[in-house]
Amino acid sequence: MDIETLAEGIIAGERRALARAITLVESGRADHRAAAAELLAKLPTDRQALRIGLSGTPGVGKSTFIESFGMMLTGQGERVAVLAVDPSSARSGGSILGDKTRMDRLSRDPNAFIRPSPSQTHLGGVARRSREAVRLCEAAGFDVVLIETVGVGQSETVVAEMSDVFVLLLAPAGGDELQGVKRGIMEIADLIVINKADGDLKSTAARTRADYAGALRLLRKRPQDPEGFPRATAVSALEENGLEETWAALQELTDWRREHGFWDRTRAAQARYWFEQDVKQRLLAQLETPQAKDDLTRLSDAVADGARDPAEAAAEFVRRLRAD
Amino acid sequence: MDIETLAEGIIAGERRALARAITLVESGRADHRAAAAELLAKLPTDRQALRIGLSGTPGVGKSTFIESFGMMLTGQGERVAVLAVDPSSARSGGSILGDKTRMDRLSRDPNAFIRPSPSQTHLGGVARRSREAVRLCEAAGFDVVLIETVGVGQSETVVAEMSDVFVLLLAPAGGDELQGVKRGIMEIADLIVINKADGDLKSTAARTRADYAGALRLLRKRPQDPEGFPRATAVSALEENGLEETWAALQELTDWRREHGFWDRTRAAQARYWFEQDVKQRLLAQLETPQAKDDLTRLSDAVADGARDPAEAAAEFVRRLRAD
Repeated sequence: MDIETLAEGIIAGERRALARAITLVESGRADHRAAAAELLAKLPTDRQALRIGLSGTPGVGKSTFIESFGMMLTGQGERVAVLAVDPSSARSGGSILGDKTRMDRLSRDPNAFIRPSPSQTHLGGVARRSREAVRLCEAAGFDVVLIETVGVGQSETVVAEMSDVFVLLLAPAGGDELQGVKRGIMEIADLIVINKADGDLKSTAARTRADYAGALRLLRKRPQDPEGFPRATAVSALEENGLEETWAALQELTDWRREHGFWDRTRAAQARYWFEQDVKQRLLAQLETPQAKDDLTRLSDAVADGARDPAEAAAEFVRRLRAD
Repeated sequence: MDIETLAEGIIAGERRALARAITLVESGRADHRAAAAELLAKLPTDRQALRIGLSGTPGVGKSTFIESFGMMLTGQGERVAVLAVDPSSARSGGSILGDKTRMDRLSRDPNAFIRPSPSQTHLGGVARRSREAVRLCEAAGFDVVLIETVGVGQSETVVAEMSDVFVLLLAPAGGDELQGVKRGIMEIADLIVINKADGDLKSTAARTRADYAGALRLLRKRPQDPEGFPRATAVSALEENGLEETWAALQELTDWRREHGFWDRTRAAQARYWFEQDVKQRLLAQLETPQAKDDLTRLSDAVADGARDPAEAAAEFVRRLRAD
């Protein structure tokens, strides 16, 4: 593969080149990693997309929302990329967004690019690959990058740390209980979108939106937010209602953050975060070699039997690791 | 310091030798670390205390409970050690249990040993030191080791991973809200003890106990529990009521676990856990040298400025670290 040609194709906004480049950054092979690093070094860093993190559990209508929201954006002339971050796909064998037919219209739109989640081994790897895929999309001139996750375990935090804004998609909930929200998610959401505000669920969706709006007002105001944020909106992805208001809210928020320096500050802090995470992950990757795994198992067994002390066995293991 | 003499003193149950040995394992100096390893290797491993993890936020009467509970145990001929695990003491400058006068009677009891939390830099270090202190107390022939924590951040998990049983101490709460319990703590608690069941709070304490007992019944039964556990009890540490019932519950639980193999299995799993934690911590300790910190700061600044890519900078950092 000619890296120079690939870089030119990406910069020209060619979707095929972009798809090939993402395949390259997703590969774990050493030569592919080296080629990916070379490629990334050749790409411009001055193109910035609006990175929108999007989380929602299965059943909230995430695919329908992404399709409707994406189509509205391309209709306004925006180029839209959709990436999935799914740490669970290694276990389940499948991947979210794997079935592009669920987003039939958007996937055929020339101004859209949809990329399913690769099969993964661990969240650290997912994070690096996804960040690099986001960078590739930005270099390819996309205006909006939607990074979606199903919200398993820590995946929302991972996505939030690579997004400019974070959207939580929820279904209408009966009663006045705020349901389905994992602890900590309310604190990272910039916008809560209640989907399915249509048909029988329309009034429930309105009430759910009001409930969340009330709950959000109880949270302490964050420095990176103007008045009125985080906000809750209600949409019908199916009937394509409320999408413009949601987009307007996102633009109001990001315009304010750009003006007040929070956009750049957040991206700088995220870069530091990923640097530190990468360093730690590279150090811990030493535990993943077959030799290291054998040693770990043997010593762990001895420790469990009481034959060895945990700290002393750990010291021996690390000594051997460095001697290699 | 003569390690052989120190080991003999500990095995003979001398409190001064134990205190000196704990100071040794708490030290970060390389020569002290080597001496501590030598000492631990000389100690018998066949003496097992009942390790009781105890968590409770300030204000629940933890010191009073430990004193009353400890005095009841020494009154029954048990030798009792009390250790504190407090990851926050480095920040606050103080340490829990620092004021031994709060446990005036217990600290003067010849069958008790109270050790304040050392000032700490990070939770990983606290964990290793505390585990080694527990081992020293066991080698010194203590029957019960109470490991207390204020429950800041992850400290309850750390204490639970070095305890045979975990006790959560709570104050009576008004209304039927279950308050003051961090998410996840209910899942690790073997016994919930409502303190201050005396005076005006007596009926509130009884109701709070019943509320928690009800909540515990809703949790899925864990394999390591007999019927009726986790359990909730109410005590008055001040009036010394309910302490025997609490002790009986702990004995019922641990007898069952010993009979059914869970005692040994838990200790083996904990040893594996600490081995793996120690390995990771030793690998990450490479980041703590002055040279590594300088490099990290310099590269992190370059990454935040956008001059360097996070993954590429991380790769360079780790390369340099290995070359040293």
